Amino acid sequence: MTAKKRVYTFGNGKAEGNADMRNLLGGKGANCAEMNLIGVPVPPGFTITTEVCNEYFQKGKEAVVALLKDDVEKSVKHIEKLMNNNFGDPKNPLLVSVRSGARASMPGMMDTILNLGLNDEVVKGLAKKTGNERFAYDSYRRFVQMYGDVVLGMKPADKTEIDPFEAIIEEVKKERDIKLDNEMNVDELMKLVKLFKQAIKKRTGKEFPSDPIEQLWGAICAVFDSWMNERAILYRKMEGIPSEWGTAVSVMAMVFGNMGNTSATGVCFSRDAATGENIFNGEYLVNAQGEDVVAGIRTPQQITLEGSRRWAKLQGISEEIRKTKYPSMEESMPEIFKQLYDIQGKLEDHYKDMQDMEFTVQEGKLWFLQTRNGKRTGFAMVKIAMDLLREDMIDEKTAIMRCEPNKLDELLHPVFDKIALRRAKVLTHGLPASPGAGCGHIVFFADDAAKVHAMGKRVILVRIETSPEDLAGMAVAEGIVTCRGGMTSHAAVVARGMGKCCITGAGEMQVDYKKKTLTINGEVLNEGDYLSLNGSTGEVLKGRVDTKAAEVTGDFAELMYLCDKYTKLHVRTNADTPRDAAVARSFGAEGIGLCRTEHMFFEEKKIRAMREMILSETKEGREAALNKILPYQMIDFYEILKTMDNCPVNIRLLDPPLHEFVPHDLEGQEAMAKEMGITVQEIQRRVAALNEANPMLGHRGCRLGNTYPEITAMQTKAIIGAAIKLRKEGYDPRPEIMVPLIGIVNEFDAQEKVIRETASQMFKEEGIVVRFKIGTMIEIPRAALTADKIAKHAEYFSFGTNDLTQMTFGYSRDDIASFLPTYLEKKILNVDPFQVLDQEGVGQLIQMAVNKGRAVRPELICGICGEHGGEPTSVMFCHRVGLNYVSCSPFRVPIARLAAAQAAVEDLIKEDEEKKKRKAEHEAAKK
Amino acid sequence: MTAKKRVYTFGNGKAEGNADMRNLLGGKGANCAEMNLIGVPVPPGFTITTEVCNEYFQKGKEAVVALLKDDVEKSVKHIEKLMNNNFGDPKNPLLVSVRSGARASMPGMMDTILNLGLNDEVVKGLAKKTGNERFAYDSYRRFVQMYGDVVLGMKPADKTEIDPFEAIIEEVKKERDIKLDNEMNVDELMKLVKLFKQAIKKRTGKEFPSDPIEQLWGAICAVFDSWMNERAILYRKMEGIPSEWGTAVSVMAMVFGNMGNTSATGVCFSRDAATGENIFNGEYLVNAQGEDVVAGIRTPQQITLEGSRRWAKLQGISEEIRKTKYPSMEESMPEIFKQLYDIQGKLEDHYKDMQDMEFTVQEGKLWFLQTRNGKRTGFAMVKIAMDLLREDMIDEKTAIMRCEPNKLDELLHPVFDKIALRRAKVLTHGLPASPGAGCGHIVFFADDAAKVHAMGKRVILVRIETSPEDLAGMAVAEGIVTCRGGMTSHAAVVARGMGKCCITGAGEMQVDYKKKTLTINGEVLNEGDYLSLNGSTGEVLKGRVDTKAAEVTGDFAELMYLCDKYTKLHVRTNADTPRDAAVARSFGAEGIGLCRTEHMFFEEKKIRAMREMILSETKEGREAALNKILPYQMIDFYEILKTMDNCPVNIRLLDPPLHEFVPHDLEGQEAMAKEMGITVQEIQRRVAALNEANPMLGHRGCRLGNTYPEITAMQTKAIIGAAIKLRKEGYDPRPEIMVPLIGIVNEFDAQEKVIRETASQMFKEEGIVVRFKIGTMIEIPRAALTADKIAKHAEYFSFGTNDLTQMTFGYSRDDIASFLPTYLEKKILNVDPFQVLDQEGVGQLIQMAVNKGRAVRPELICGICGEHGGEPTSVMFCHRVGLNYVSCSPFRVPIARLAAAQAAVEDLIKEDEEKKKRKAEHEAAKK
Repeated sequence: MTAKKRVYTFGNGKAEGNADMRNLLGGKGANCAEMNLIGVPVPPGFTITTEVCNEYFQKGKEAVVALLKDDVEKSVKHIEKLMNNNFGDPKNPLLVSVRSGARASMPGMMDTILNLGLNDEVVKGLAKKTGNERFAYDSYRRFVQMYGDVVLGMKPADKTEIDPFEAIIEEVKKERDIKLDNEMNVDELMKLVKLFKQAIKKRTGKEFPSDPIEQLWGAICAVFDSWMNERAILYRKMEGIPSEWGTAVSVMAMVFGNMGNTSATGVCFSRDAATGENIFNGEYLVNAQGEDVVAGIRTPQQITLEGSRRWAKLQGISEEIRKTKYPSMEESMPEIFKQLYDIQGKLEDHYKDMQDMEFTVQEGKLWFLQTRNGKRTGFAMVKIAMDLLREDMIDEKTAIMRCEPNKLDELLHPVFDKIALRRAKVLTHGLPASPGAGCGHIVFFADDAAKVHAMGKRVILVRIETSPEDLAGMAVAEGIVTCRGGMTSHAAVVARGMGKCCITGAGEMQVDYKKKTLTINGEVLNEGDYLSLNGSTGEVLKGRVDTKAAEVTGDFAELMYLCDKYTKLHVRTNADTPRDAAVARSFGAEGIGLCRTEHMFFEEKKIRAMREMILSETKEGREAALNKILPYQMIDFYEILKTMDNCPVNIRLLDPPLHEFVPHDLEGQEAMAKEMGITVQEIQRRVAALNEANPMLGHRGCRLGNTYPEITAMQTKAIIGAAIKLRKEGYDPRPEIMVPLIGIVNEFDAQEKVIRETASQMFKEEGIVVRFKIGTMIEIPRAALTADKIAKHAEYFSFGTNDLTQMTFGYSRDDIASFLPTYLEKKILNVDPFQVLDQEGVGQLIQMAVNKGRAVRPELICGICGEHGGEPTSVMFCHRVGLNYVSCSPFRVPIARLAAAQAAVEDLIKEDEEKKKRKAEHEAAKK
Repeated sequence: MTAKKRVYTFGNGKAEGNADMRNLLGGKGANCAEMNLIGVPVPPGFTITTEVCNEYFQKGKEAVVALLKDDVEKSVKHIEKLMNNNFGDPKNPLLVSVRSGARASMPGMMDTILNLGLNDEVVKGLAKKTGNERFAYDSYRRFVQMYGDVVLGMKPADKTEIDPFEAIIEEVKKERDIKLDNEMNVDELMKLVKLFKQAIKKRTGKEFPSDPIEQLWGAICAVFDSWMNERAILYRKMEGIPSEWGTAVSVMAMVFGNMGNTSATGVCFSRDAATGENIFNGEYLVNAQGEDVVAGIRTPQQITLEGSRRWAKLQGISEEIRKTKYPSMEESMPEIFKQLYDIQGKLEDHYKDMQDMEFTVQEGKLWFLQTRNGKRTGFAMVKIAMDLLREDMIDEKTAIMRCEPNKLDELLHPVFDKIALRRAKVLTHGLPASPGAGCGHIVFFADDAAKVHAMGKRVILVRIETSPEDLAGMAVAEGIVTCRGGMTSHAAVVARGMGKCCITGAGEMQVDYKKKTLTINGEVLNEGDYLSLNGSTGEVLKGRVDTKAAEVTGDFAELMYLCDKYTKLHVRTNADTPRDAAVARSFGAEGIGLCRTEHMFFEEKKIRAMREMILSETKEGREAALNKILPYQMIDFYEILKTMDNCPVNIRLLDPPLHEFVPHDLEGQEAMAKEMGITVQEIQRRVAALNEANPMLGHRGCRLGNTYPEITAMQTKAIIGAAIKLRKEGYDPRPEIMVPLIGIVNEFDAQEKVIRETASQMFKEEGIVVRFKIGTMIEIPRAALTADKIAKHAEYFSFGTNDLTQMTFGYSRDDIASFLPTYLEKKILNVDPFQVLDQEGVGQLIQMAVNKGRAVRPELICGICGEHGGEPTSVMFCHRVGLNYVSCSPFRVPIARLAAAQAAVEDLIKEDEEKKKRKAEHEAAKK
């Protein structure tokens, strides 16, 4: 038995791991290894695997430390050897960083500790060795501060209080009336370290650990612990990342961007993460550590000259001032810039995708600390994929697989109406950190955002800067705007990941958290006021600016075209109105998969006749009322069938409990009493008689049509009547009539009889025949279980996964809120099954029904309607079980098209792999 | 291709059919054939098959008459030849009867026509040939009357009106002031025929058909039509007879019991149909036709001397009067009696079961018209089966299969408490037509019975005599008492079939339908007054007489013992109280299959603490309230586990929505507000927050235990605490803890953890370990679909078929009434799936869950609880899919035991058949 390898080293152009091992080493660890292998300068280090993270949560801290001890100590020696210094050696000290790194990028979600290995002795040695006492003590106070925060839990007590260490810094600076951190002298930095340690002792009751090895274990465990912190859990929930993936821990020799003016640190992107344009860009800070760039505390400078000029223009800064105060790296460190530029190109070529890189310059030497595929907006995602395809960097299949279906949602969000935009008042400009239009009520705190959002209102989150604690608030906001921070600040990176519009570094904004006001050039806005953000231009706009629907054009249209080339699954839409149908057609819907007829009854004139029908207690009374409804229904169907000319339109017969239609208020009841010439008491009695204990399991669906066949007959007349009219006018209507809520084949047969007889009669009378289909919805478990019986009669199946999920789980969607949050939190459920199809249970029934149905009717058309039809993993499932189409709301049609294409491409990739494998086996056999 | 044989003849010791062909020929047709084959004198005739009945309803009357024409005419000739007379020949006429006869006996449900072939000419010939003009015209008027009623639809206009023909008879009798029908002279009978025909012409507009062949076709079609009459449909629904079975039509030469005093007609049984005693018995009437006996119009005489004496005693008739006015056949026709006695013995020996026979004596010659296995009460069913076994007529397996499980219900019905009975006032005596105790409110009409029953009240149906129209009323009554009719009257036969207690021929009772009063010896009882019937003694008792539970003793106990010898399936009971548990144990329950804990909370003291728990909004508040509940729960479980010492007791954790426990009235809310020290408004808010749109699919079952694990912990403490206490006292408690409403295996795991941890803690504290199991209820479709996952953790499965049926069909039991009647009527459903397990859908899920579960845990114990556990066909299904036990309400335990044994015996019978087949094949191969 080989012992499990828990630690992988890298450094000096060699590595035990590589880029393919990201599941085990995390993105950061795998890429550090890979960069070594392709000759990118990376400080030496080692990575503890993600498997250890799981062991950590199963076996506990002590057990895992014992397991790792030997390997970690050996690996520290490996770094010492390559860096030619020693951990904890005051004469020649090695400092390290300890970083998290999961399989998927989770920016800012977990913790990092820098400058680890310092103590009162080592700091002196560092000062001596570098001849830079200020640097040494600044590093020391940063380390104590960071370690105190991350490992020892020194957080602010509540959100209005500032960080306890920052409070001490402010105190110390006040003594000499200093403004900036870097104005502090060595004595003051030494004092800070002392005060920090006292504060730590006071709060935790323990001394700050001075043993570097003890520090290292504390940091490693803290990184593992951070995998389970609240914001990381929330992030994973939003992104659908399983907690079993775990995080790796990378320990790396420190290199310093804060060793004076020949040192710097920065972040760069090989293409524009917001727009997708092929422009190298990034930000850097001279004499700083990496955290300073990401945290958004100091305003970073642009790396390229072009970027710097554009930035200055947006910020209203003159070229003169820019050049002197905020020069680009291209200007200030041209040699380093050249190296940086070459390496970023090399990395993009190597990974064949847009790279997001971190680097540090230590006294004129460039080190890469990290590279990864960059997060990007939906717009950028599409543009980059199509650009890389055009540049022959990737093939069509890869281009399709590179796009995340859900992110297309951003491209379908409304954009500001151009005319409205022209009239709107621009309050100020910031950086266009994440494109799109956002409009809502101003809130200043994440939890306020959640509260106001829960009331059904749109919100704009306004912050001085954001931190990982703001994640939940950002998730519900329409847009985010911050006073500080650059294009790579926390707010910018997270917002792009979420596809939210975001403006950062809007420096003219002044935020007062206590008063909850936003002041811009003297104009005071309060919490609750409307604000609009144009994330594509960086404009902050006053009040509410009108928006209009998005269109499928340009790269987006090309991507969709590419998808259709590969897809096997057709995409239809759920639409009840001609307008929705038209929108969906423009997004590429190939038909209507679900046209609900009940919504049509709620218009004033129709609802009265409908109520009369329901409240009649005789067949004659019902028929008289239905005759009033018929002409309205016929017009409804006429318009929809016309809009969807040439395309199948699947119309579901009346489905909801009748109780939903009748008046429950006295006024409405009196009106009905008058209309029907009976007493209010009688109306009330009849309304009460319709009340049900569990309406979801009650008198609805085909149970209505079977108890009142006259309703089915009327609806058939309306559908067939509309189709005949269109046919006479030269259209090609293709109606499909769907019987809902079948559980027993006899239910279908009885309804089919009514439909066929009604239609035949009409065809005879009109002397014209229109082809139509009769199918059923499979949404009751029993229907799936007996699908072989049902398929003998039904011409198609449409899976109503909303109801099927309700019945299969025994959950009422209306009542799930009382336990779903607990279930998600306790991991009893990983996702809400009403959002993501439960493949194991509900999916099993679908698979069973398709197999049983096609066994008796091989040509049986099977589709899915309901919320799941637009959810990418569910769409892929539909492809796998062999459905013919999915149907979803108009705005999810492109998402479904992409997901369907990806499912087909995955099949092709698997086939290719199989072929390769067989070929390799064949070759091997030859030899 | 052989032409389908539609008509089978019999007569003179030969027959084309035999007893095995009852599916095709109906019971009557098959047995007439068989009787011929074994030498019993039967008038010649022929039978039209049940298949023709289906053709009749598919192809219509004319098509079927055309199909049958040749065969029927040929068969009439066959009768003519054997009887040596001719149909429609005035000189030597053949008369026939036309009778229905389905596969299963449906007494009185369908129509019969006698004396067919008479017209104004033939009647003269008949008179001449028989030399009995009175007989001839009496037969003619009977024929016209019967044909008019059955074929031509001459029914009373409403229930208070008397029969239109009877009205005419009364008119004619009044003219000469005659009392009895047989006092009418020939002129009067001729006048009746004339008046009858006029009445028919007046009502139907058509002449009475004089052509015998036309009469015959009319009668055949009327018999087919009667298969679909309302009462036949209702009867089939009650008995679970499919309408596809159809009825056969038997046409048979008439023999006449009304040709004078050497003629008679009667009905007899080889054993007592009420008590099962091995005593030949029956009733007859001299100079009468069969209908007179069954219809209960004339008081029939007993066949045996012993029976006659007993009858006279019950009726208060002196031996003197009995001998002269009501002599037994044994006395009046000793020769015939001897033949009758021999043949009945022969028939019972041949069919190896109690026979119900119809016979006619025509001028001293005995003819058998019918024999069939006699309907009997549940008591008689058990006694006869066990007696036949003891008499070596049948074997054990046959004895088990002879008993109908549902009929055991009668033996389990309460009987009158002996002391209460001694105190009760006997109003009058009637015949003990069907045993048992019945007590309820007096009603006089079938539809009143239904109405009062629907109000939740027990009713006793009081009638002068019953007719098939009263069926629905009899079905809902606790008992039936009639003024007229004997032991073989309609009321008696039907009541025995239904297992209702029944007293017939209570001649002292006077019923006034208009005033709705019952007068007995001057005492006047009104509709709604209480009346009690002792069907075992014939006593009609005043008021309400107390009853007590039945016991399993004597033959019943022997049958149960026999069942246990064969059964594979264990039978447990559903019981929530020690009392129910004790009753079930006495009925042979081997454990508790479902102990619901929620009912325990409704006692005064407990409900308050329960409400406090529910309305608390903190974990601490809930725990405090749960601590108050704990001691009560522990006592509950202690008592039940003690009662079921040595037996498994499956306790389900709290299941129903919490909403069911909280007070919805202001008074209750005020009390809770006071108790908890909060405002009424606050209580109301919290009560309202528990409201759900679909509580059946809401926050219930393990969803409660998973959101509030403290409830599970408390219940575990109570169960384990009770078990520990019993163990210390020397008992052997065997608790099983069941987690309800699992849909996801994680739900089970989380609950299992709480239970195991709580129990371990208690075992540690008490220094004693009690073995217990943790299992789950499979009642959510998803649980069945993922049973392999769940069985990895759960130690047993209990199928909750009530909820599983709800979810699989998507039906709410509370709301099904709005469409179930329509569904049953339209045959969309054949039975209510909440009463009879749906094997196709729900059963498929059960089978799947058992297979999947045992695939990962071969020793997995599977049982069923819920209403279906006591329903025989469902029990047999449970046997077939390999469940270990069924669980049902205490009073269904013996029924389930019998059904389980039958399922096992069926397997043995099949095995035997297989063996025989293989042996035969082997033998054949040898040759």
